[in-house]
Amino acid sequence: MANEFVVTPWEVKGRVDYLRLAREFGVQLITDEDVKSLQELAGDVHYLIRRGFFYAHRDLRTILDRQRTGLKWALYSGRGPSADLHIGHLVPWMLGRWFVNRFGVEYFFEMTDDEKFLVKEGYTLEQTNRYAYENALDLIALGFPPDKLHIIIDTEDIKYLYKIAVRVGKKLTLSTVKHTFGFTDSTNVGAAFFPTLEISVAFLPTELYGETVPVLIPTAIDQDPYFRLARDIAEDLGYPKPSTIYGKFIPGLTGEDKMSASNPDSAIYITDEERDVKRKIMNALTGGQPTAEFQRKYGGDPDNCVVYKYHLLFQESDEKVKRIYEDCKVGKLLCGECKAMLFERIREFMKEHNERRERAKDVVQQYRLSTKFK
Amino acid sequence: MANEFVVTPWEVKGRVDYLRLAREFGVQLITDEDVKSLQELAGDVHYLIRRGFFYAHRDLRTILDRQRTGLKWALYSGRGPSADLHIGHLVPWMLGRWFVNRFGVEYFFEMTDDEKFLVKEGYTLEQTNRYAYENALDLIALGFPPDKLHIIIDTEDIKYLYKIAVRVGKKLTLSTVKHTFGFTDSTNVGAAFFPTLEISVAFLPTELYGETVPVLIPTAIDQDPYFRLARDIAEDLGYPKPSTIYGKFIPGLTGEDKMSASNPDSAIYITDEERDVKRKIMNALTGGQPTAEFQRKYGGDPDNCVVYKYHLLFQESDEKVKRIYEDCKVGKLLCGECKAMLFERIREFMKEHNERRERAKDVVQQYRLSTKFK
Repeated sequence: MANEFVVTPWEVKGRVDYLRLAREFGVQLITDEDVKSLQELAGDVHYLIRRGFFYAHRDLRTILDRQRTGLKWALYSGRGPSADLHIGHLVPWMLGRWFVNRFGVEYFFEMTDDEKFLVKEGYTLEQTNRYAYENALDLIALGFPPDKLHIIIDTEDIKYLYKIAVRVGKKLTLSTVKHTFGFTDSTNVGAAFFPTLEISVAFLPTELYGETVPVLIPTAIDQDPYFRLARDIAEDLGYPKPSTIYGKFIPGLTGEDKMSASNPDSAIYITDEERDVKRKIMNALTGGQPTAEFQRKYGGDPDNCVVYKYHLLFQESDEKVKRIYEDCKVGKLLCGECKAMLFERIREFMKEHNERRERAKDVVQQYRLSTKFK
Repeated sequence: MANEFVVTPWEVKGRVDYLRLAREFGVQLITDEDVKSLQELAGDVHYLIRRGFFYAHRDLRTILDRQRTGLKWALYSGRGPSADLHIGHLVPWMLGRWFVNRFGVEYFFEMTDDEKFLVKEGYTLEQTNRYAYENALDLIALGFPPDKLHIIIDTEDIKYLYKIAVRVGKKLTLSTVKHTFGFTDSTNVGAAFFPTLEISVAFLPTELYGETVPVLIPTAIDQDPYFRLARDIAEDLGYPKPSTIYGKFIPGLTGEDKMSASNPDSAIYITDEERDVKRKIMNALTGGQPTAEFQRKYGGDPDNCVVYKYHLLFQESDEKVKRIYEDCKVGKLLCGECKAMLFERIREFMKEHNERRERAKDVVQQYRLSTKFK
């Protein structure tokens, strides 16, 4: 049986073949040469790129060329705020932070409270708007200078986007958005219009600065349809095509290819109690042998282990990660110990995060686009 | 052959049977009793209602009952600003002015520069936005206190509307807007979303005041599809159903049932030179006899005369209108004289209008919603 999988902005199903996905979407793989260019420009390369978690892109070289020649560019990410975050949500934003720190670029961040209200049953706009503020705290907690991170909340900052969205909206037929996003005639007209707003932010820096400011968008690869459309219409509208850098999905602890909101044990939430984090990690699917004895004798399989993948995502130290890999392979490291190490790392990560998140409450307005651009 | 006609917000074709149209749209006719209620409440009744030009409605009584009991309500009209106005565009706004003067209510007025850009080829958003300001001058020139008339320009004042529009947009499927407005999959997604904004203004006074403020919408009957939808979803969203009062179309001088932008001689534009106005009126289709001799002998047919219809629309004096009607019937008034009288009236109307329009340039900001509601 063929390996069947589905990846859309709304749904990830089946075992994802990331190389095939890149080919089907028509995006480029990040090459050794790309990594070398980044190394030369930044002095180092973020571990999420080095370790191949961010693995594909559109026009990354355009952005690197601008950086090389001192021309303006900006970062852009987004979040559909409908719930508390799981720690996987932070991963692309961590890469965004690295770009901000290394290149001093501005980071435009869209909280799509409108979209989440439109596509999810059972939410009021007040709820998704409240989550926009909650999620903003998590973003700020990662550490950004207030003059570099610009948070946009769609329903509150629509004045910055609407004129662009109307121009975008004139370029996209219902047929195009139906085909691109799988909409049908039963889709509500708000949800059908929403892609214009996700596309608009890609053009916003150019509008705000009155000069060409292309964006680089670090995001999960399922968001590609938006930016494919954005690239299709950009030049017609007088805007630069956005570039993208695409990550894989954060695997679920219980074995899914993507953390799942419908299975709370598959993901670690920012708001989880320590004992829940511990339980979830201890119950995670590993590449270990059925018994400690077998593990010692035959070694484990880190390449097919969710726990090892989490070490890759949240442990910055290459040395530590390498040791885990090798010790697992030769049976020196048992799954229980390895999970305990991961728990320690995640616990530490979350403790720091929640402290910084608490402090973010006092400064959130400093990060709003509307505070800085009148 | 049956009388075939088409009336949509985008198109009026054929000889309109207004009674049948009211029946097909499911709207009520204005009865003698309605007119009597208005008379009791206002002290008089605007001649456009008395003369049956405004002839149909939805829930007019709800508004009259609120007026009677001293409860808040508001007026709402709109304009798609894509060109200079013809004098017929002013007619529903003249009725709006009467309601404002008689009842002291507030008048919310939406300039849909987004819509006109989205549905018309060859316009930039800058152009439709500029027309929004131009058309606003014509509205203000009719005479309103600045605290009663609130002008909304969609692309600039979107922050007042977007949250409502998102809620409206969640209630309307693509199927519904396609069916209601004749959209197809080739319609652009901006145009498909736009109805949510026309509907939103009907709910805006309730949002702004934080209490139930139903609106009365004086408009041409072709706008009914928007407000039928608005009424369908209002209660679900916690808003009062809008009421409407519907006018017929301003007939074209050359005989069409509606002034046509594609035939400049069918309409008198605000910007027309006096000699153009004269020529257009002198060339208008009448209900007169082929010769002066025949006219004197058999009399004319004012009931089927465009010139007489224009007297009805722009001559406030019942006495003068009555004399024209009777003198025409008995052949005492010839078409040339009657047209000369109409030209005089329109000339005077336009002269006053353009003087007041000139003065409006200094005060337009006082009438913006955004000046008054922060």
